[in-house]
Amino acid sequence: MKRSVLKFGGSSVADFNKIKNIAHYLKERVQNGEQLVVVVSAMGKTTDNLLKSVHELTSNPNDKDLAMLLTTGEQQTISFLSLALHDLDVSAKPLTGYQAGIETIGKHLKSKISSIKTDLLEQLFEENNILIVAGFQGFNKAGELTTLGRGGSDTTAVAIASALDCPCEIYTDVSGVYSTDPRVYPDAKRWDMISFEEMMEMSALGAGVLETRSVELANNHNIPLYLGKTLSNEKGTWIVPNDQILERKAVTGVALDKEMAHVTITYPTDENQSFLHDLFIKLEEAEINIDMISQIQNQDGLQLSFTFKESEERELNELFDSLKSHYQELYVKIETTYCKVSVIGAGMRDMTGIASKIFKTLIESHIPFYQVTTSEISVSYVVDGKNGEKATRILCQTFDL
Amino acid sequence: MKRSVLKFGGSSVADFNKIKNIAHYLKERVQNGEQLVVVVSAMGKTTDNLLKSVHELTSNPNDKDLAMLLTTGEQQTISFLSLALHDLDVSAKPLTGYQAGIETIGKHLKSKISSIKTDLLEQLFEENNILIVAGFQGFNKAGELTTLGRGGSDTTAVAIASALDCPCEIYTDVSGVYSTDPRVYPDAKRWDMISFEEMMEMSALGAGVLETRSVELANNHNIPLYLGKTLSNEKGTWIVPNDQILERKAVTGVALDKEMAHVTITYPTDENQSFLHDLFIKLEEAEINIDMISQIQNQDGLQLSFTFKESEERELNELFDSLKSHYQELYVKIETTYCKVSVIGAGMRDMTGIASKIFKTLIESHIPFYQVTTSEISVSYVVDGKNGEKATRILCQTFDL
Repeated sequence: MKRSVLKFGGSSVADFNKIKNIAHYLKERVQNGEQLVVVVSAMGKTTDNLLKSVHELTSNPNDKDLAMLLTTGEQQTISFLSLALHDLDVSAKPLTGYQAGIETIGKHLKSKISSIKTDLLEQLFEENNILIVAGFQGFNKAGELTTLGRGGSDTTAVAIASALDCPCEIYTDVSGVYSTDPRVYPDAKRWDMISFEEMMEMSALGAGVLETRSVELANNHNIPLYLGKTLSNEKGTWIVPNDQILERKAVTGVALDKEMAHVTITYPTDENQSFLHDLFIKLEEAEINIDMISQIQNQDGLQLSFTFKESEERELNELFDSLKSHYQELYVKIETTYCKVSVIGAGMRDMTGIASKIFKTLIESHIPFYQVTTSEISVSYVVDGKNGEKATRILCQTFDL
Repeated sequence: MKRSVLKFGGSSVADFNKIKNIAHYLKERVQNGEQLVVVVSAMGKTTDNLLKSVHELTSNPNDKDLAMLLTTGEQQTISFLSLALHDLDVSAKPLTGYQAGIETIGKHLKSKISSIKTDLLEQLFEENNILIVAGFQGFNKAGELTTLGRGGSDTTAVAIASALDCPCEIYTDVSGVYSTDPRVYPDAKRWDMISFEEMMEMSALGAGVLETRSVELANNHNIPLYLGKTLSNEKGTWIVPNDQILERKAVTGVALDKEMAHVTITYPTDENQSFLHDLFIKLEEAEINIDMISQIQNQDGLQLSFTFKESEERELNELFDSLKSHYQELYVKIETTYCKVSVIGAGMRDMTGIASKIFKTLIESHIPFYQVTTSEISVSYVVDGKNGEKATRILCQTFDL
């Protein structure tokens, strides 16, 4: 029997009509002889609204309590979808993250899936055609409820597909993967097919369609991944192994990562590197994602700079405050409202002249850039926040995307 | 260390200010050296609103899905209360019914608690002063989420107090047990103390302060039970063993049970009683509570009547529909808008003339009654819905309550 994991995001299940329509669609798929795992997010803005309401209670919410609270959002969606499916006489079983055996490790609000009880899922498939699983949530060794962080429902879906070794279809309100965000560049092209490698690079560089670790997980387990628009006849994008892409363009896409910030750290005396050591341990503990690190040791001592998400500014400031109590001479300068524009293409490694073409384009368009980093299949530029969309459009035109 | 179970109902936790105030009160109790289990219901009208929303999805909701949905209500309350307590630096641990090990048996929406993992609770008390438990919910042997039915949070609280062998305090928006509902008879008296026996009879007869099985459970485990008004200095009522009540009045209270319905069943040929047998098995399976049963076998065949809650009319009709397919000659007549007025007093068994005084009062007040049943410490009358409150007031005056 054909088996697939389908994931519907928050905007796809935002109201009861949408949930009913999804139930009808799922019934058709089951009638065509499929068994389905359906992963759903919290309805519409539920998670944001719960988080907002918390600020009426406390300015410093506890992560464990937040995880306990947020998991109710998806639990409501699985209940509602199950009610809609049972109304259509489809055999379905709703499962919270705990009930589906989704065990996690790490911080309560940024957990990672460590294992899934596939035996249990196989057993439930004997009596049900559809297993409805609450996305974004799991439980840790202590039996506490946890959440996977933003984009977590995608990870839930891909992790289940990997565990069951079946394809995974991710449905959102965007019909697939575009060369760049169509809201920024309306002429952007939609790809029918893209390689895992390119998709991972686009996700990592902030294209925002899928979280990097979801793509990575699917790639590691060789799980076919599909991105499409919910209940639409528009064709979406299949993400496939690199060697299945026959005709390759040099450049596949331009990713724009907004709301970046930049920090420059000066510390005059760090001869035994104890400061650097402490800094990176604290960054790891706080699970702050940093990027584009560059370091210089000169007559002024250590100079280090890196970029991070603006949304993590509060956590980073707290981290530096605690470091300053030990390192009095520490000087920190944080600058916000930057963005990162990246040009991605698996063909880039075989071809020359791409980087120089980008440099030339940006300079001719009078867009200053402050830092450049390259990977095997991408080049990234930090530019002023106000220039991000302009740079994206110009680069898309340059590379005919 | 002194230990107590406290329960706060839905109206007591209806908004964030109320939750904050409860958190401050709990902090005081902990600072006075107590360990607390705090059982909470869903906030305000959450449960009703969830149930209402379901009707947009299906007219015939599945019980398992409903239980899964409803349990999110209390899970949100325990998260919010935990956030408020942690904001005050009180060590507290929120627990869903599943996490607290509240195992249940029976139907998904009318489950009964079969066991509680006290080992786990004892262990958690080593690191926490307050355990916050989601009321009204548990899980069954299959690992499915269940709810305990209306008034279920009281049962959760009393069951935990019984398991931990400590007193249980139930807080609502009413300050204790009155001789009758003060909304019906504003001069009603509040008792400082009442016996378990009287309280059980009042609950069973519909006084509505506490569900019968909560009182029964506390009585069986000899758990002191307190009913009081949330965060109020007004004195509440202690429910104590019968022998601790020294001065006894003949009559303690008048209970008014509204929204009663009455069914009369006629079945001409039931010689081997197979119909009666099937009927009672089906009633038990459907867990419909019936009361005031009377049965006659005459020349017209079997005649049976009983009362039930108007809210169960739909379920009862379905039951009769399925019976009619086997018993074509079955005739069923359902009448609604009755109510039951009961006069209760543990002293009643030692004293005479109570019943005749009631009969006399009702007849003189021109209140017709259709059925009378008596227990050792109560007398109940079925009267027209419109006469319920009038009868209650007149009987309270007659017995100086």
